[in-house]
Amino acid sequence: MTADQPPDRRAPDRHSRESGNLQSPRIVVTGTIGLDTVETPFGKVEAALGGSASYFALAASLYSSVSIVSVVGEDFPAGYQELLTRRRIDLTSVARLPGQTFRWGGRYRYDLNTRDTLFTDLNVLTEFKPVLKEAERAAPYVFLANVDPALQAQALDQARQPRLTMLDTMNLWIEHSRDALTDVLRRVDVVLVNDEEAREYTGEYSVFKAARAIRDLGPRIVIVKRGEYGAILASDGGYFFLPGYPLEDPRDPTGAGDSFAGGFLGYLASVDMALPEMDGAALARHPSMASIRRALVHASVVASFAVEQFSVEALVELTPEQVRARFRGFKRLTHFDE
Amino acid sequence: MTADQPPDRRAPDRHSRESGNLQSPRIVVTGTIGLDTVETPFGKVEAALGGSASYFALAASLYSSVSIVSVVGEDFPAGYQELLTRRRIDLTSVARLPGQTFRWGGRYRYDLNTRDTLFTDLNVLTEFKPVLKEAERAAPYVFLANVDPALQAQALDQARQPRLTMLDTMNLWIEHSRDALTDVLRRVDVVLVNDEEAREYTGEYSVFKAARAIRDLGPRIVIVKRGEYGAILASDGGYFFLPGYPLEDPRDPTGAGDSFAGGFLGYLASVDMALPEMDGAALARHPSMASIRRALVHASVVASFAVEQFSVEALVELTPEQVRARFRGFKRLTHFDE
Repeated sequence: MTADQPPDRRAPDRHSRESGNLQSPRIVVTGTIGLDTVETPFGKVEAALGGSASYFALAASLYSSVSIVSVVGEDFPAGYQELLTRRRIDLTSVARLPGQTFRWGGRYRYDLNTRDTLFTDLNVLTEFKPVLKEAERAAPYVFLANVDPALQAQALDQARQPRLTMLDTMNLWIEHSRDALTDVLRRVDVVLVNDEEAREYTGEYSVFKAARAIRDLGPRIVIVKRGEYGAILASDGGYFFLPGYPLEDPRDPTGAGDSFAGGFLGYLASVDMALPEMDGAALARHPSMASIRRALVHASVVASFAVEQFSVEALVELTPEQVRARFRGFKRLTHFDE
Repeated sequence: MTADQPPDRRAPDRHSRESGNLQSPRIVVTGTIGLDTVETPFGKVEAALGGSASYFALAASLYSSVSIVSVVGEDFPAGYQELLTRRRIDLTSVARLPGQTFRWGGRYRYDLNTRDTLFTDLNVLTEFKPVLKEAERAAPYVFLANVDPALQAQALDQARQPRLTMLDTMNLWIEHSRDALTDVLRRVDVVLVNDEEAREYTGEYSVFKAARAIRDLGPRIVIVKRGEYGAILASDGGYFFLPGYPLEDPRDPTGAGDSFAGGFLGYLASVDMALPEMDGAALARHPSMASIRRALVHASVVASFAVEQFSVEALVELTPEQVRARFRGFKRLTHFDE
């Protein structure tokens, strides 16, 4: 704020322009909000709150302010809206369109590693075009959750010099929209994939070679998720490995990846992380890499809580104290002395 | 040595009794010495030095003195004997019997995770009965490499109050000699299994529950190997997770598990580790647990080198400096600050 711009003039201006939103959110996410019907060996929920943007935003809101750009139908329950806004997640860019909300149904097998999709009703999602309002365009952290890469690109086009951009995807787009995916991949800083997607997209069996092939396209960081085996972060500053948190009774893996992304970007936004322009050896020692390692631990911690309950149940109850305790648990799990 | 036992009398006594071996080895291993024919997508070797005891002893000899209790046939090449004795591995308890040495042939598929056994010719192994000489019975560290659990029990019967005993096994014994395996499992301190074996033996899908079920039988420590995903160590002092070292070009996984065991027990023998009798919380803070964590890192480091070459090629050339460098590499891979 400069001396010739008094606070009493500036605030109302922004207020009127942003329809109630006084400040830019720290994080903007574009993705889905849906109603999930999920069956696992441990129970079943019907039309529960789901979607990549919901999981991501609930996770990230533990750390930072988040705004969602998405769409719902007329049937979207007020109670679910309340679950999100109670965490101060900005929903003013979530369009409510005539018709039904996106619905997905799936069943997990006994080991929770394999799932069968029972139905996917896109409904109002077919009409989704991401439109970021002015404050969202200025958000320093941008997450392009798993949707059609053409829509991810449209959202990214509207962002104004974000500090860090991150993208998630899935095999559907790798198989059917490869070129569009490659176009948007080239433009982001961090790519989140699982090991199968990394192999399928690059044709490299080794996840290390696959991560390098993706980084060669432009992204500075590639995070390869390996399910129960944890995650690998590959950057110019070297690899970082984190195991999966040892859960004896995971109940519902739905949304684990989006919760992971929320913990990661939420933490980075809370510490104002920016990736410096430097080469490998210098980057390895740069404080930003220490932040990125911590962010991956937060990502895993938040995801580990998310899968202990159905739908977003665990995320809406999660406290910073619980996160800190499990963060220390991760340290006990992994550290050793020389 | 006591005052009434002059050194000039004692040494020749021991010498004559031990046929050239003046001192107890730090480690005694009973297992196989074999001739392996191995084909991977990266090459092929024929009748190369193999067997669980060979890999283990070469790995452990980087740290401590090792004696092998095993058997070979008349065809066992002098050159292979020389590879072992050059590392001061004691072979005086390796019987040379009429007939052929144990031979195994296998082919690995493109991802190196799946292998097909082409032949298993037990040959002189069918006549193997482990007989530990006096000095070996006094060895403080005992490794029962993967053989028939009845033979493992016979070897263990001969050990006199060892400080630490460790056992490896395989699915064959889980399926066909389950009771004998359980009997010997109950008597050792450390059990080494891979995730599939842990699941098969216990019937628990979760490796954490499986490790607990094995510890409930008696072993203080269970190490679950997860191939490229690393290893989990479960003890009363908590879990310790270590990722697999990121190898872009592994060539031959044969002997990885035995090299892993050799690095683990070799390191513990070199620091004189003993497991204290105490409960979980106190054990977690005890220096012995820090040694055990370091030992698992050494295990992974040595195994990571072993798989970069065919047969025992990498192990016979490996130096402590290379091990230390990769140990530091593991620290960079896994550590984070609070």
